[in-house]
Amino acid sequence: MRRLTLALPGNEELAHSLAQACGSEVGGIEIRRFPDGESYVRLHGDPLGRPVDLVCTLARPDPQFLSLVFAADAARELGASEVNLVAPYLAYMRQDKRFQEGESVTSLSFARLVSSTFDKLLTVDPHLHRHPTLSAVYTIPTKALHAAPLLADWIVQHVEKPLVVGPDEESEQWVGAIAARIGVPHAVLRKTRHGDRSVDIDAPDLSAWRDRTPVLVDDIASSGRTLAMAAHKLVEQGMRRPECVVVHALFAEDAWTQLAPLFFRITSTDAVPHASNRIALAPLFAQALLSGQTDPCG
Amino acid sequence: MRRLTLALPGNEELAHSLAQACGSEVGGIEIRRFPDGESYVRLHGDPLGRPVDLVCTLARPDPQFLSLVFAADAARELGASEVNLVAPYLAYMRQDKRFQEGESVTSLSFARLVSSTFDKLLTVDPHLHRHPTLSAVYTIPTKALHAAPLLADWIVQHVEKPLVVGPDEESEQWVGAIAARIGVPHAVLRKTRHGDRSVDIDAPDLSAWRDRTPVLVDDIASSGRTLAMAAHKLVEQGMRRPECVVVHALFAEDAWTQLAPLFFRITSTDAVPHASNRIALAPLFAQALLSGQTDPCG
Repeated sequence: MRRLTLALPGNEELAHSLAQACGSEVGGIEIRRFPDGESYVRLHGDPLGRPVDLVCTLARPDPQFLSLVFAADAARELGASEVNLVAPYLAYMRQDKRFQEGESVTSLSFARLVSSTFDKLLTVDPHLHRHPTLSAVYTIPTKALHAAPLLADWIVQHVEKPLVVGPDEESEQWVGAIAARIGVPHAVLRKTRHGDRSVDIDAPDLSAWRDRTPVLVDDIASSGRTLAMAAHKLVEQGMRRPECVVVHALFAEDAWTQLAPLFFRITSTDAVPHASNRIALAPLFAQALLSGQTDPCG
Repeated sequence: MRRLTLALPGNEELAHSLAQACGSEVGGIEIRRFPDGESYVRLHGDPLGRPVDLVCTLARPDPQFLSLVFAADAARELGASEVNLVAPYLAYMRQDKRFQEGESVTSLSFARLVSSTFDKLLTVDPHLHRHPTLSAVYTIPTKALHAAPLLADWIVQHVEKPLVVGPDEESEQWVGAIAARIGVPHAVLRKTRHGDRSVDIDAPDLSAWRDRTPVLVDDIASSGRTLAMAAHKLVEQGMRRPECVVVHALFAEDAWTQLAPLFFRITSTDAVPHASNRIALAPLFAQALLSGQTDPCG
């Protein structure tokens, strides 16, 4: 039986390309607010006896979370054979331990609610820190897809003589793999973080690559401070205006206005809907949904 | 060991009077937003080995729900002997069945999440429709407290020669009990509802009570249409400008601006913080928390 793809508001484009890529039917989710602030949720499309994939990127998770749960519960009650969450950007990956007394470990609480609501979770490059895999946090089968090959392919098709640049030493392996896939050189900067918003960046000597276009790659552009400082350091070294390629285009607060002038172009996947989206994730999700494979449990 | 009372933002006043009434310690909940829209939650006060009562009225449930869960999970992880939700106004009581194909039964989904997070739920006059009790929806022990005696006592202390008026026939029993408690007459109007926002009201002949002050009482003032029409009908009959007493001062959208001129005074309990709050619920909650009694399961 054909899968049913349902988009939470704002995720319609990805849902449509996902449905095309995996041959599923596209339904709809109607969401209204009652005057008192409660949400009304209604599914359009019949879940009975088939897998239902709810598409909802979690870039601004708090206000939409209840609607997402309401939609999932309705799909299950209406007979879906399984209810999956396709969340290209997964929220609450940062606070995965208690740093100070009394803190909520939001990673675990969020994972608890999601695990109690869905059968399976699919996401792209979750921002894992201390936990090695999603299965250390989620009790349902998960699949963490990798956008790196798509980023590499986009770079080789759109940038002449690229130098792939990672913003910090942690990104060495990831950036190295992207560069290796397309046979170009890479370099990494060194990042020192002071608190939520303040970072320092040092760049190695890049004079050997001055004939190349630096392409800064990162998994997430949130406050954008790291990327901004990195761009400055590259230009200070006499490099040409860099390209920037990220997986998750969060661009919190004024990040986009600050960043856009510093780069020749900023490109992102469609994990978070944004004007910079140029790399489609639908094929990646379609393959994962159709194969049904999940990552090994932790 | 002394109980620990913690307020979600906006519930500090009730939490303080509740703590005074039941001799508990007041802690705090620090909530910040990260630039990317995620919430940071930190408890101040040590939950170890004692009952923790989280005070959070649920008048605007969607944006604050995750923070509430994060706080509750943290209290539990930090060793609370029980984690209770004191929600003077309980959300998602309206959609308790599927009226049209595909609809989410939000009452059940919301109750599922709350039941998986708290040990006990205390609320005041939940807007029950088709389910007779909260225990038909919630799988944890619940206590639905009744504000009627407090409303009655306020009326007798503040209104001379009151006529207690209910807005519809459904309120007959409730309104009758309030009037009986203070030995004054009562009447009920007849309501016909057309959709979410449109209602008609008919009033019986009230000429026998023209020397009395009509006091419209209702469990909830949301859009305020019912109360507005009721006020007009009373004045049309030559009654003096009515008083209004409600349990839950939601006042959605422009309801307050529309209603305020129609009444001599609008009074509410502090279930939902509002300028009209004049009736304190803390003694009611304190008694219930200290006795530990819950309603029978359904």
